[in-house]
Amino acid sequence: MRNLSLMTDLYEFSMANGFQRDLPETKATFDVFFRNVPDDGSFVITAGLQQVIEALQNFHFSDEDLDYFKQLGIWDDKFLDYLANLKLTCQIKAIPEGTPVFPREPLLTVTGPIAQAQLLETIILNILNHQSLIATKARRLTYAANGRPIMEFGARRAQGPDSAIYGTRAAIIGGAKSTSNVLAAKKFNIPAAGTMAHSWIEAFPDELTAFRKWAERYPDNSALLVDTYDVLNSGVPNAITVFKELREAGHEPVGIRIDSGDVTALSLQARKMLDDAGFPKAKITISNALDERIITSLLQQGAPIDNFGIGEKLITSASAPVLSGVYKLAAIDQEGKTYPKIKVSASREKITIPGKKQVYRLYHKGTNQAFADLIASDNEDISSLSDISVFNSNPSSVNHKYHLTRFDAKSLLKKVDLTDDAPLSLQAIQSDSQNKLDELPRATQRLINPDNYPVYMTETLNQIQADLLNEKTADID
Amino acid sequence: MRNLSLMTDLYEFSMANGFQRDLPETKATFDVFFRNVPDDGSFVITAGLQQVIEALQNFHFSDEDLDYFKQLGIWDDKFLDYLANLKLTCQIKAIPEGTPVFPREPLLTVTGPIAQAQLLETIILNILNHQSLIATKARRLTYAANGRPIMEFGARRAQGPDSAIYGTRAAIIGGAKSTSNVLAAKKFNIPAAGTMAHSWIEAFPDELTAFRKWAERYPDNSALLVDTYDVLNSGVPNAITVFKELREAGHEPVGIRIDSGDVTALSLQARKMLDDAGFPKAKITISNALDERIITSLLQQGAPIDNFGIGEKLITSASAPVLSGVYKLAAIDQEGKTYPKIKVSASREKITIPGKKQVYRLYHKGTNQAFADLIASDNEDISSLSDISVFNSNPSSVNHKYHLTRFDAKSLLKKVDLTDDAPLSLQAIQSDSQNKLDELPRATQRLINPDNYPVYMTETLNQIQADLLNEKTADID
Repeated sequence: MRNLSLMTDLYEFSMANGFQRDLPETKATFDVFFRNVPDDGSFVITAGLQQVIEALQNFHFSDEDLDYFKQLGIWDDKFLDYLANLKLTCQIKAIPEGTPVFPREPLLTVTGPIAQAQLLETIILNILNHQSLIATKARRLTYAANGRPIMEFGARRAQGPDSAIYGTRAAIIGGAKSTSNVLAAKKFNIPAAGTMAHSWIEAFPDELTAFRKWAERYPDNSALLVDTYDVLNSGVPNAITVFKELREAGHEPVGIRIDSGDVTALSLQARKMLDDAGFPKAKITISNALDERIITSLLQQGAPIDNFGIGEKLITSASAPVLSGVYKLAAIDQEGKTYPKIKVSASREKITIPGKKQVYRLYHKGTNQAFADLIASDNEDISSLSDISVFNSNPSSVNHKYHLTRFDAKSLLKKVDLTDDAPLSLQAIQSDSQNKLDELPRATQRLINPDNYPVYMTETLNQIQADLLNEKTADID
Repeated sequence: MRNLSLMTDLYEFSMANGFQRDLPETKATFDVFFRNVPDDGSFVITAGLQQVIEALQNFHFSDEDLDYFKQLGIWDDKFLDYLANLKLTCQIKAIPEGTPVFPREPLLTVTGPIAQAQLLETIILNILNHQSLIATKARRLTYAANGRPIMEFGARRAQGPDSAIYGTRAAIIGGAKSTSNVLAAKKFNIPAAGTMAHSWIEAFPDELTAFRKWAERYPDNSALLVDTYDVLNSGVPNAITVFKELREAGHEPVGIRIDSGDVTALSLQARKMLDDAGFPKAKITISNALDERIITSLLQQGAPIDNFGIGEKLITSASAPVLSGVYKLAAIDQEGKTYPKIKVSASREKITIPGKKQVYRLYHKGTNQAFADLIASDNEDISSLSDISVFNSNPSSVNHKYHLTRFDAKSLLKKVDLTDDAPLSLQAIQSDSQNKLDELPRATQRLINPDNYPVYMTETLNQIQADLLNEKTADID
């Protein structure tokens, strides 16, 4: 396994060195959360926890790493010895992969010696930000496709190999059905998909010969690419010729793929030609720079598309290529006491929620219909309450108190066992994700102007935040 | 070294199988090129060739890969034997890393047995598209910063570990001076940069204590983060207190970093406070969601910034996160004859330039001032000509003939030696890149509405394209 422990910002080491000397007995709790949802959606689908676990299981520094540290000359031998002998003792809690999560909710927390916990920031954020971003985009595409399969086709436009490999993993969590990426398919047991490129057609003297050669080679996997020269005047007629020959030889054709042009008009016309020729079951796949907006539009126009192959717009989440998850200090433990910590900011929306926390999903009592999330202090037991006073968790909102009754509360943050090496299958995560989505209000799921799903915090957390804000402001005045 | 041979689209294998059977003696030439420049710039900075070379040096399939292929059940044992015994014999030509290149110019070509050459498409595109994208973005940021250093700070928001590691490599090629990413710094011998996060400040009872502890630990690397509570009322005054203590102890302070707020006002005020306190050499670093547009604006407003730390907007090229490089069949060789190949398309700009090619940069005679590029057939010797007739290479442009005289021509595509294992240093590539930029017209380099640098093709190529277009259209009618 690749060791990613060095894939860390320099300042994490410099801080860890200082913490190790100045606060050797201090424990810290850091929260991972985000403030804004990509594409103006209402939620993010969490993904990447399995790779975080693997990175932490394998967290250590090699002799070569230590030689490099020595060469940098920033830290003394005592800290290098500490790194050489480091065994992680941090406790991790996380919301399971595939869960829809909302702004300001801790989706992962790290508690442990402050030097150690600080060192984990970069790698945890890198993995969670990336995979959650792509899972969220895949969920949007899946929603737009409205039951038609999404195939992940983006390896060539991904931001490096990992972006292709783990982006594909995340795409499956978010609802994609298959991938063209063979390494990802093998690694994560995902169905592999794809047929031919234009080069296949061009390598033969003419399109009909190229189609025939393909059908000869793959009689039961004859999805023919029909737009190399002219879809309606050449591609589809040649495909139909070959489909007839295939059927005569006892094989049922798979269908056609269109990769350019006016997809609505072409698919409507191609559908008619295939139907008229006796191939109503031959499928039409489209793969031309698609995103959720274009898919929605194509389907509204009645384009008879059976499958969507999605390239760069999925694997890079091109319309919103960053999930800005952060890793913020929530509390420190010193001499048996816990001190909640806050980051104040001139930008009010950047003020953090202090303290060690748990996140609850609240359901209308006796149903599986969620109506809000609640961030609580980790020593409040919300599940046992029948009513509660809460505040909006958004620091930019009016500080209004709400009273909630008749709910069931389920906690979302679960202890992570770092010794566990039996990861869930992606298919299990995908289907769990779909179930959790079904619990949310329909209006929260739509792509454009989704309804605002409330994320509350308890009165206790609200008070801690207000007290710390006052104290910090007093410090400054 | 990681084996990325399987990081390939499924259809490449299916086509390779067919090619291996139906066209075993056919050689193919594929071109890598792009049609559009990200961010409406005029050129792309090539990057990634070194990693392409490493991927090809290591191109093979393991027993585990072959077991997986068997399990897929798409191809028979004969093809699996071919893959098991595959030794690449393709010839690669490429434009060296760091070169500014323009739309439609082949920046890498692969010539070899068609099955082999087809198998290399995905991995070559993945690497070149990613690194060239980030190098191009870094070049834009470097241009905007107008001599001030750019530091790469994006690991936590990159699209997976490779995106952070190789994105950093590309950022250096495009002009960045240092990185926070320790793994990338070690791997590519890049200066590592960075000091502290907000968590350092928050972990101590107050900001002044946190600054003092830092200065004690790193007396000669005291760049203090001043925006945890309040930049002007707390951060800068506390920093100045510590800077005075440092100076008394014989250390010169480094400076401050601001990561939020109205950066222009804050940096102007902080500069004045530092100057008045006797620290005119203390540097101001800014690291708040910067991109080339914001940097330009800050400098136009006179913000006294010394260094820029750039996060997500560089490492993901967030405003344009995809370089859509393609890998297109240009020619095949069969029985000693070369057949140029074309991809026709309903979208005129997608029509390819057929044939095996070389790219020349044309300079005003006797100078190093480039004025145009010229795509030629690889059997035309442009360097020896004193005048030539050319056409615009853009298939969407008017087919006008131009006459060029008094030029020097330098070829850009160089043979790549796959046995070479002494890569150039990144610093050498960065400085070569800067030299090549200096050869281009100033108007071509500006960020907004850059002047259109002409990319011509020779009369020979123009004729081949026209003939093939006529032939394909005739086929269809």
